[in-house]
Amino acid sequence: MALNPQRTIDELKELRELTGDENGAQRVAWTETWSRARAWLRNKLAELPVEVHNDPAGNTWATLRGASEKTLILGGHIDSVPNGGWLDGCLGVLTGLEVLRRFAAEGTPPITVRLVDWADEEGARFGRSLFGSSAVSGFFDPDELALLKDREGRPLPEVVGGCGVDLARAREAGAEIKNAAAYLELHIEQGPVLEDLGLPLGVVQGTYGVERYRIKFKGQAAHAGSTPMHKRRDALAAAAKLALEIRPIAVRNGGVCTMGSVTTRPGIPTSVVADCEAILDQRHMQADGLARMLAEAQEASARFAAEEKVDVAWEKLWMIEPIPFHPELIAFCAESIRETAGVVHHLPSGPLHDAAEVARVGVPTIMMFVQSLRGISHNKIEDTREEHLQLAVAAFDRLAGKAMGWVAGS
Amino acid sequence: MALNPQRTIDELKELRELTGDENGAQRVAWTETWSRARAWLRNKLAELPVEVHNDPAGNTWATLRGASEKTLILGGHIDSVPNGGWLDGCLGVLTGLEVLRRFAAEGTPPITVRLVDWADEEGARFGRSLFGSSAVSGFFDPDELALLKDREGRPLPEVVGGCGVDLARAREAGAEIKNAAAYLELHIEQGPVLEDLGLPLGVVQGTYGVERYRIKFKGQAAHAGSTPMHKRRDALAAAAKLALEIRPIAVRNGGVCTMGSVTTRPGIPTSVVADCEAILDQRHMQADGLARMLAEAQEASARFAAEEKVDVAWEKLWMIEPIPFHPELIAFCAESIRETAGVVHHLPSGPLHDAAEVARVGVPTIMMFVQSLRGISHNKIEDTREEHLQLAVAAFDRLAGKAMGWVAGS
Repeated sequence: MALNPQRTIDELKELRELTGDENGAQRVAWTETWSRARAWLRNKLAELPVEVHNDPAGNTWATLRGASEKTLILGGHIDSVPNGGWLDGCLGVLTGLEVLRRFAAEGTPPITVRLVDWADEEGARFGRSLFGSSAVSGFFDPDELALLKDREGRPLPEVVGGCGVDLARAREAGAEIKNAAAYLELHIEQGPVLEDLGLPLGVVQGTYGVERYRIKFKGQAAHAGSTPMHKRRDALAAAAKLALEIRPIAVRNGGVCTMGSVTTRPGIPTSVVADCEAILDQRHMQADGLARMLAEAQEASARFAAEEKVDVAWEKLWMIEPIPFHPELIAFCAESIRETAGVVHHLPSGPLHDAAEVARVGVPTIMMFVQSLRGISHNKIEDTREEHLQLAVAAFDRLAGKAMGWVAGS
Repeated sequence: MALNPQRTIDELKELRELTGDENGAQRVAWTETWSRARAWLRNKLAELPVEVHNDPAGNTWATLRGASEKTLILGGHIDSVPNGGWLDGCLGVLTGLEVLRRFAAEGTPPITVRLVDWADEEGARFGRSLFGSSAVSGFFDPDELALLKDREGRPLPEVVGGCGVDLARAREAGAEIKNAAAYLELHIEQGPVLEDLGLPLGVVQGTYGVERYRIKFKGQAAHAGSTPMHKRRDALAAAAKLALEIRPIAVRNGGVCTMGSVTTRPGIPTSVVADCEAILDQRHMQADGLARMLAEAQEASARFAAEEKVDVAWEKLWMIEPIPFHPELIAFCAESIRETAGVVHHLPSGPLHDAAEVARVGVPTIMMFVQSLRGISHNKIEDTREEHLQLAVAAFDRLAGKAMGWVAGS
């Protein structure tokens, strides 16, 4: 059976029909709709000579046994955010399925090929993304996760238990990658870079490292009418200066910086702002670049605090190191794109992906991006041109073939 | 009976004892504690040859009838914010009481002298300040007020009704000022100006005009990781520029500008801010200065919106014109301060006061300010040195004497 990219598009639409509504995709992990999507996937897999099981973290694995135990993994996630798009995550799963079909049709492959549907990539319900892939990588703390509750107050252990996952044993899923020799994932870009360049496909260099902090500026409440301008200790003014300064910091260091939230207290028209809290998210492809951006933002915040006679304190919320993908696989990915679509562009991934969890434990990893229209995802208007999806399936199949040759020959 | 400024200080402390607790003054209008404070005031007034009644808006009037119906009014408000200070409002009432005692001791005055305790200056319970004085001025809409509820959901008409006020008839209190020839009010500054200058007393030129707007910047939500810096339409960036630009606008025009509240949506670490709403409060002593500040802020916001490729819209929340006090009374106030404390300083009032309501309907009006320590009020640590309070009572008595002479001779 030859590769059929149109079938992938048809199946994406079939899945949309089955698990979406007028507000978009509704495949939130651990829900009935998600289970329906996964049952549908298992039906598709039942037509292939593959063994299918769920691991202790709830990831679904389909294994096409090859001549060698060395394993090539193709991955994606079928879960979505609420009111999500029709491509985010499931494009990777269904493209992997199509490539698996092609390999299966060619007889026993020289190495083992597996498709994985990661459980709860989005973290939409408990605010904790990469659930299944981090259980496999081991960057997963069951005690911490046990404390999470959804909006209705239901605890995570109870909810995942309903889908057959014993939180305390989830890390045993790590055994699944013991023979992994390469991991490949196709995903929509979720950003505007490829569309701006007029290119359908891109090679992902790796995932950005992230430093995320809450920054607290503390000034003095004072009456808006009776306090002369020069007597104010305005916490908002210091935060405003920082909101503007992070932009040249990002540009000159080649990363991105975002102040996504600002809160003001007392927050009334008649008072100078006493307390202003800002959340700063900084991302960079290199560890030294990330560290430099953080240091420059901290230095700037201290300078602005001094200028405005306010105090400033930084509270770390989260960090992850940059995770570069594998140079050999980057080269194969570039070749595959050149052969399929002509022009190649390399770009980092701003959002995290399951691929980052696999890469951080040393499995050679690569992602391919396909153009997103208007750079929009996590929204029902998320879209990609069908001719670009066709190219993506074809290029990803080429990449899988090259990776298989590389693993088999190693 | 000679003027006794120490008695005023003693009575302020007596009132604090009666109606305060460890968190400060608790004389919130329309409460039992407020009623207790007013009953205590009536007891004091009962020792004087004055007629006392409440008007239809709940203001308490004490009238010392003079040879002429022309009337000099001394005013203040005994209500406080919750956890308020020991001077805000009641200093005016109790100083007026002491001056009334002095006049009464001297026999029938040439003109009528009245003390008014305004009802609900603070608006702490329903968010509507200057209740009683605006009922007198007529800038008072009973239909609008009828819709207000307190935090417990009790409607304003019910609550004020419990204190004998029929909301529909409250504006009939306007009759109280038909013979008013001058209105005088002593208040703490509630700002840092006099303390900075090392001066105990100041002449108030008038109350600032206020323009208050909600400014809505509308950009585009975009992923913090996948959106390059130059592709962003960041609503926060435009608001941050405006938060900084209002400061030179205020300084060069001689007013004050405050951005007291900023909100961000979606307000999450992983998204560029799509919607940023800021509240801008601008105050100036001259109408043209106020208009210029508003125009400059609007022009700046449009420029910043264009730079950041976001939209901006201004929504008016409230405005009041600047209310200058009476030039003759300003001169008397300056003379009184010079005779009592030596040095005179003129300053505008940033906060509004009941005096503004009286002035805006044409009654010649003046306020005197006494220094506030650290510029702090609406807080239990609100304070003023006792020697400054003594000077304030003495200077205000002189002002009342000069005003009486002026009214009697006019």
